[in-house]
Amino acid sequence: MEAPSPPLAVGWKQKAYSVIFESDTSAGRAFDIGLLIAILLSVLVVMLESVRSINAQYGPYLRAVEWLFTGLFIVEYIARLLVVRRPLTYALSLLGIIDFLAIAPTLVSLVLVGSQYLIVIRTLRLLRVFRIFKLGRFVGEGEFIVLALKASRFKILVFLTAVLTLVVVIGTMMYVVEGGQNGFTSIPKSIYWAIVTLTTVGYGDISPVTVLGQTLASVLMILGYAIIAVPTGIVSAQMATPSKAAPMYKQVICHVCQATEHNPEAEYCWRCGEKL
Amino acid sequence: MEAPSPPLAVGWKQKAYSVIFESDTSAGRAFDIGLLIAILLSVLVVMLESVRSINAQYGPYLRAVEWLFTGLFIVEYIARLLVVRRPLTYALSLLGIIDFLAIAPTLVSLVLVGSQYLIVIRTLRLLRVFRIFKLGRFVGEGEFIVLALKASRFKILVFLTAVLTLVVVIGTMMYVVEGGQNGFTSIPKSIYWAIVTLTTVGYGDISPVTVLGQTLASVLMILGYAIIAVPTGIVSAQMATPSKAAPMYKQVICHVCQATEHNPEAEYCWRCGEKL
Amino acid sequence: MEAPSPPLAVGWKQKAYSVIFESDTSAGRAFDIGLLIAILLSVLVVMLESVRSINAQYGPYLRAVEWLFTGLFIVEYIARLLVVRRPLTYALSLLGIIDFLAIAPTLVSLVLVGSQYLIVIRTLRLLRVFRIFKLGRFVGEGEFIVLALKASRFKILVFLTAVLTLVVVIGTMMYVVEGGQNGFTSIPKSIYWAIVTLTTVGYGDISPVTVLGQTLASVLMILGYAIIAVPTGIVSAQMATPSKAAPMYKQVICHVCQATEHNPEAEYCWRCGEKL
Amino acid sequence: MEAPSPPLAVGWKQKAYSVIFESDTSAGRAFDIGLLIAILLSVLVVMLESVRSINAQYGPYLRAVEWLFTGLFIVEYIARLLVVRRPLTYALSLLGIIDFLAIAPTLVSLVLVGSQYLIVIRTLRLLRVFRIFKLGRFVGEGEFIVLALKASRFKILVFLTAVLTLVVVIGTMMYVVEGGQNGFTSIPKSIYWAIVTLTTVGYGDISPVTVLGQTLASVLMILGYAIIAVPTGIVSAQMATPSKAAPMYKQVICHVCQATEHNPEAEYCWRCGEKL
Repeated sequence: MEAPSPPLAVGWKQKAYSVIFESDTSAGRAFDIGLLIAILLSVLVVMLESVRSINAQYGPYLRAVEWLFTGLFIVEYIARLLVVRRPLTYALSLLGIIDFLAIAPTLVSLVLVGSQYLIVIRTLRLLRVFRIFKLGRFVGEGEFIVLALKASRFKILVFLTAVLTLVVVIGTMMYVVEGGQNGFTSIPKSIYWAIVTLTTVGYGDISPVTVLGQTLASVLMILGYAIIAVPTGIVSAQMATPSKAAPMYKQVICHVCQATEHNPEAEYCWRCGEKL
Repeated sequence: MEAPSPPLAVGWKQKAYSVIFESDTSAGRAFDIGLLIAILLSVLVVMLESVRSINAQYGPYLRAVEWLFTGLFIVEYIARLLVVRRPLTYALSLLGIIDFLAIAPTLVSLVLVGSQYLIVIRTLRLLRVFRIFKLGRFVGEGEFIVLALKASRFKILVFLTAVLTLVVVIGTMMYVVEGGQNGFTSIPKSIYWAIVTLTTVGYGDISPVTVLGQTLASVLMILGYAIIAVPTGIVSAQMATPSKAAPMYKQVICHVCQATEHNPEAEYCWRCGEKL
Repeated sequence: MEAPSPPLAVGWKQKAYSVIFESDTSAGRAFDIGLLIAILLSVLVVMLESVRSINAQYGPYLRAVEWLFTGLFIVEYIARLLVVRRPLTYALSLLGIIDFLAIAPTLVSLVLVGSQYLIVIRTLRLLRVFRIFKLGRFVGEGEFIVLALKASRFKILVFLTAVLTLVVVIGTMMYVVEGGQNGFTSIPKSIYWAIVTLTTVGYGDISPVTVLGQTLASVLMILGYAIIAVPTGIVSAQMATPSKAAPMYKQVICHVCQATEHNPEAEYCWRCGEKL
Repeated sequence: MEAPSPPLAVGWKQKAYSVIFESDTSAGRAFDIGLLIAILLSVLVVMLESVRSINAQYGPYLRAVEWLFTGLFIVEYIARLLVVRRPLTYALSLLGIIDFLAIAPTLVSLVLVGSQYLIVIRTLRLLRVFRIFKLGRFVGEGEFIVLALKASRFKILVFLTAVLTLVVVIGTMMYVVEGGQNGFTSIPKSIYWAIVTLTTVGYGDISPVTVLGQTLASVLMILGYAIIAVPTGIVSAQMATPSKAAPMYKQVICHVCQATEHNPEAEYCWRCGEKL
């Protein structure tokens, strides 16, 4: 795991790197918080644009602000590419792709009218929020939840398969029972209803009318009410178990690809090779 | 538990057996995955058939595909009967019956128009999905969940009896309180409402209108919100307990009847006598 | 705790007692199961009577059956009074009162037309169902749940008080925010809505329309979604704790008053003095 | 932590203090219970006033009763200020402010018609309910819940951030998918819908109509159904852990500012300096 000491980057590059990618220094922390606010504001602007009455009145201003943020994010993206040790690895990492996609829709909308649909991707930049909290307790706590979910993933998969089978079977039965009436117009729609019911959401846009249908629905509801205990039990039991794996990792997140679970003595990220 | 060494089956039969019923060999695994896809596709076809607009346009094609899958399943069913050690045991096992019922409706629909209602049974073939994951971690995980539920079955039964009593009592009270109005037109319908409310599904197709009714409904809702803790607590506590029974079983599922909980040294299934 | 040996009852009385109140003998077990079926059927009859279409057609038959069951329950009630060691204690115990109330409404309906409303009380006789399972595992399991809930009662009470305060505060705020419109016509109705929302029932008969109202509702929903963890955590933690109290009691239920938690060497019920 | 013995207050003042702020004496207990009843009744009066039909008939009486309670609360507030050791600390503590705000709206309504909106604040006085139960088991139990939630606060925060990100992303996707139709008229409204769905409330005021929308909604519902396990698991695991911190505190609540977590040998509140 011992890698050769890395060639030292140029002074300004290293400094920019520590500001943009790290948050131990006060400058890095300020950059991260500024970025967080910019992301939140830019998402807010997109949201407000979608409200018809606001768009009618403030549309041009909102679009101007949107372009401002897009400009900022472009500058940030280029800066990241410049200072990172392996630009390609960053560009192809999950966060690198999200960073790119966050600026693309606004640019594309110049050529292709109506590409505003793609703006939805920018919302994913909110994932960067977690990066800002990468030091201190949040890493450990977030990692704890992720580890517990990871350790339970097979059990949860088995549970979800069982739930899906149940929903398909009962959905189909309801289609037969209600005779294609009362909103149960097809099997897929009946399965949709079964999911709405089992998960106890219960919109009420489709609800059984026949006696047999209501009886079957009652069974499904009680099942849904009782089997919620299964995922809860799985995760509770997992979290109550003192995890043996957690303390063996270094409590850092890679600045570039956000990988965790590093060797306690690791100096480089095991996934993208960036300096930790 | 030591059984005499079984008379070796003929070469091709043993090979076919290992392909159809087992999934340790690459051929067996391929067969299982192919079967899984066939089941999913055939269920998908039945679903699409139920959508009126799709049926109007592609009806004949869908019915042709349905017949194709039915043909495949017939061939598969006969093959299973031929290569299995005890055909009758297989034919009468739960999965054997499901395998048979999965091909019956299409055949019956030739004689009896409208028997498409029975096609719902084919959906149950999805249960075979679990068979494909029978090796590796899934057996252990699935078994873990089933064991935890089994160990809690008496507690869950007591809980369900209490819930049903509560639902009957409060449902009847609501019928009296709302005076047969506002959708509470009979005691069974009021009990249906009570189930919809207690399980926090809340369709809204029936909801109380009188002050007393809304008060009673509030009590039921808070009860439902609080007593969900009981099944969850039961299962959580069970799962947190290191199960003493689990490690004592052989980690295999019978290929034919899917029984688990075999003696660690078992060579034959305790339920159907098939070779493990 | 050692009581003097009780004066032996007359032969037939003791036998009748063991049949009616106990379920260790096959006769006692048969009586209990018969009683369970009678209760379920009589409740079913009352339910069917409330369905208008069924009542119109089979009303007289149903009323005849209802009278039959009432007759049976009267005979049973008198028999219980005759064979029990302390008739008054039985008559004033919870189950004794329920037994009496289960026969009263039918009798009262002779004098007072419309007293059918009181029939709802008969449903409570379903509580006897638990008596039949008094032997074997059910006592332990049911007791386990009750003990866990009892041990958590203070925590649950604190939780419920907090929930009610929250519901009152947010309900009132919603009344102000929605300005008495959109179904939020009064504070009590707004509190009803808050309960419907916090418990995630969500009928949809009342739902916020203003932006501020929907924001407040979102906060309440996420709160409701998160704090469900509290009662669940309380009960889970309680059930996971090996209860110290449970094994110290005798695993029986008093035949007459259904008290549990008897001294391990108890021969008489600590609550009603009946022989265990 | 050893503070100098405090200058003894005048006799009547000390006595009034023990009645108003403490509940160990029978007089103090009676005062607290009387106060609890007064708070509940005054809140009830405000509630009834909001019901149009009741207000039309009994409006003047209700307003008279409201003034009576306001008078009582003013007297109580002044008494608290007089007898407390540091009046300013009390006046600026959370409960002091609530006490003041509980009397303000009625007074303000004399000058400013329509200030009845502020009456909502009085509801918060219900928080005093907890003070009455400050002795005995309730302190420990309530503290146990608060401690468990406090210990889990970082995990819950991480969970809530993840939930909010999910809700924003899926809400935006639904706006795009449903094309601004069927109630998904803007991104904020779609996010509101996503919260209603994820928390399994499911009003049904907005529900997806397109096939893609219903599919996406199904994914969100199953996610919401499964990830409820996370907060539940966090709190369950926390509560099952024997808390090391709890027994180290003195089991009292400060009479004035209701602070807990006092040093075991504390004689004065660490927050407001009041005598414990």
